Amino acid sequence: MSIFIQAEEMKAVFLEKLKAHGVTDMEIADECAAIMVENSVNGVYSHGVNRFPRMISYIDKGYIKPDMRPTLVQSFGAFEKWDGNLGMGNTNARICMDRAIALAKQFGIGCVALKNTNHWMRGGQYGLQAADAGCVGICWSNTMPNMPAWGGVDCRIGNNPFILCVPKEGGHLMMDGAMSQFSYGKLETTRLAGKKLPVIGGYDTNGELTDDPGEIEKSRRLIPMGYWKGSGMSILLDMIVTILSDGNSVCEVGKLGSDEYALSQIFIAINAEKTTDRREALLENIIEDVKNSIPVSEKSRPRVPNERSNHVREENLVDGVPVDESVWQTILAL
Amino acid sequence: MSIFIQAEEMKAVFLEKLKAHGVTDMEIADECAAIMVENSVNGVYSHGVNRFPRMISYIDKGYIKPDMRPTLVQSFGAFEKWDGNLGMGNTNARICMDRAIALAKQFGIGCVALKNTNHWMRGGQYGLQAADAGCVGICWSNTMPNMPAWGGVDCRIGNNPFILCVPKEGGHLMMDGAMSQFSYGKLETTRLAGKKLPVIGGYDTNGELTDDPGEIEKSRRLIPMGYWKGSGMSILLDMIVTILSDGNSVCEVGKLGSDEYALSQIFIAINAEKTTDRREALLENIIEDVKNSIPVSEKSRPRVPNERSNHVREENLVDGVPVDESVWQTILAL
Repeated sequence: MSIFIQAEEMKAVFLEKLKAHGVTDMEIADECAAIMVENSVNGVYSHGVNRFPRMISYIDKGYIKPDMRPTLVQSFGAFEKWDGNLGMGNTNARICMDRAIALAKQFGIGCVALKNTNHWMRGGQYGLQAADAGCVGICWSNTMPNMPAWGGVDCRIGNNPFILCVPKEGGHLMMDGAMSQFSYGKLETTRLAGKKLPVIGGYDTNGELTDDPGEIEKSRRLIPMGYWKGSGMSILLDMIVTILSDGNSVCEVGKLGSDEYALSQIFIAINAEKTTDRREALLENIIEDVKNSIPVSEKSRPRVPNERSNHVREENLVDGVPVDESVWQTILAL
Repeated sequence: MSIFIQAEEMKAVFLEKLKAHGVTDMEIADECAAIMVENSVNGVYSHGVNRFPRMISYIDKGYIKPDMRPTLVQSFGAFEKWDGNLGMGNTNARICMDRAIALAKQFGIGCVALKNTNHWMRGGQYGLQAADAGCVGICWSNTMPNMPAWGGVDCRIGNNPFILCVPKEGGHLMMDGAMSQFSYGKLETTRLAGKKLPVIGGYDTNGELTDDPGEIEKSRRLIPMGYWKGSGMSILLDMIVTILSDGNSVCEVGKLGSDEYALSQIFIAINAEKTTDRREALLENIIEDVKNSIPVSEKSRPRVPNERSNHVREENLVDGVPVDESVWQTILAL
């Protein structure tokens, strides 16, 4: 059963729990709490309120060193290497995308390669951050091995979320997707809703293709998006982030144990403020054209990738964020 | 039936035909011919010898202005906007990736957004070009509308090939993929071989999912890789390239008619020469780990995306490039 928690109350509770678990840098605590609330208000519960207990447990286990901030390792001009020092994943990511944006304002494009960081929660957040600054945002993270390479059975590659974001007045356009056809979060919510996946999402424990989310959770044999294509793209994203950051690759993260930490990430911002004086018209033109497609059915009309619809945000700001009661009780007891 | 044409002979014929069709800039003619031969030698016939007649017809129709070179429109430091002036797509792309590499050597990262250009043939060529210079290469092109958006029936989005390439001694690693599950080239070769696709690739003219390549060629209802994921990524890639280059979007290319020209492209190079002193080891580690996967079957082992195997190249350099006899006759008659 869901209860509804106002954003302000949620932030106060997050802050209190972060302090109680040893976070002494109040700027980091405040920003971390703000990002977790923001994701929840925007409807990305899996990387907001629902993930908060695991974040706290990672602090307790020492994987996250919440008072550490990222530090510059090496500068090449518009491209910099940073060390996350195992600090908070979301505040590290925010700081590094800020740096990429600053470089983009100076050089037209900026890139930060970050090692030794932690789960950034909702990756799209940093794409939107770039777009808010008038930049195209491109970023990705590697993960623990959580998907078989195409042709393999055991988890050897990451689902390495990849984000593309374009600035637009009234709502940026964004693709924020894992290299797997479905995330574990989507499998869980679909299973809990008693539903099947809309398309085949992986294999069951007998090695048969299935649209049953629970079976895929058991086998951990997710299908990469586009089969060999998502598998190949996952591997390349991991290689790029590893050699540019000089950090852990997916397989090295896997060697750290069954928890996921010490990740590597890339943040690219490209300043789009002066490239054209008709940006809104160019984007509207693309959006209109896609929307004018002949639809497969009334239920299945083409969509332009966008932020989660604003009405979720508006509802959650007024009514409060819907939170599973047991999740909220867990958080209060942290 | 295939005949075998030595690379040297192929290049001489290409050069002769380019000259005969009005190419007077011998540097462009030579480089264009060299790229078309190189793609053929590397086994990418669809974007080498098989495509040569269409390239000539586009020159004849005035879509390609082969004596034009790209020109700088605007510089932001490490990011530049260029106009392709409707020159040769492959030489334009080569010049712009060269420029991105030069910027990357100066600033760590470099980016060129190019408008008014033409089909670049094998996009992977420019990724490999960056890798040859010790850079990570990231590039993409938009295309004519050749795929329905997910949920739509008519072609509104492009399959917008996207390339990621990582430098490695003894063979760079690369993903060079369209946003459709299969390219039209793959549909054609599969149909001609009398085979079915390995997975569902689109819809037949009755709106049913099918693995029959000929049926998909008729309906033109390709499936995006990962369904809504490839559809969304295609749209975002198009938006980024359009607003950064101030050039044509996919739908504007579609308005030009049934032929594909005046495209927009992005070239990004990131200098990887000084980011780590253990690049080879980091990459070998990833490759070994993927290869150590438990295979689904002996026939289906996980693969690491790579250049087409060197043995094709070696065979083609010794025996000549296999070319369909009718294709070669068409070229000789141009």
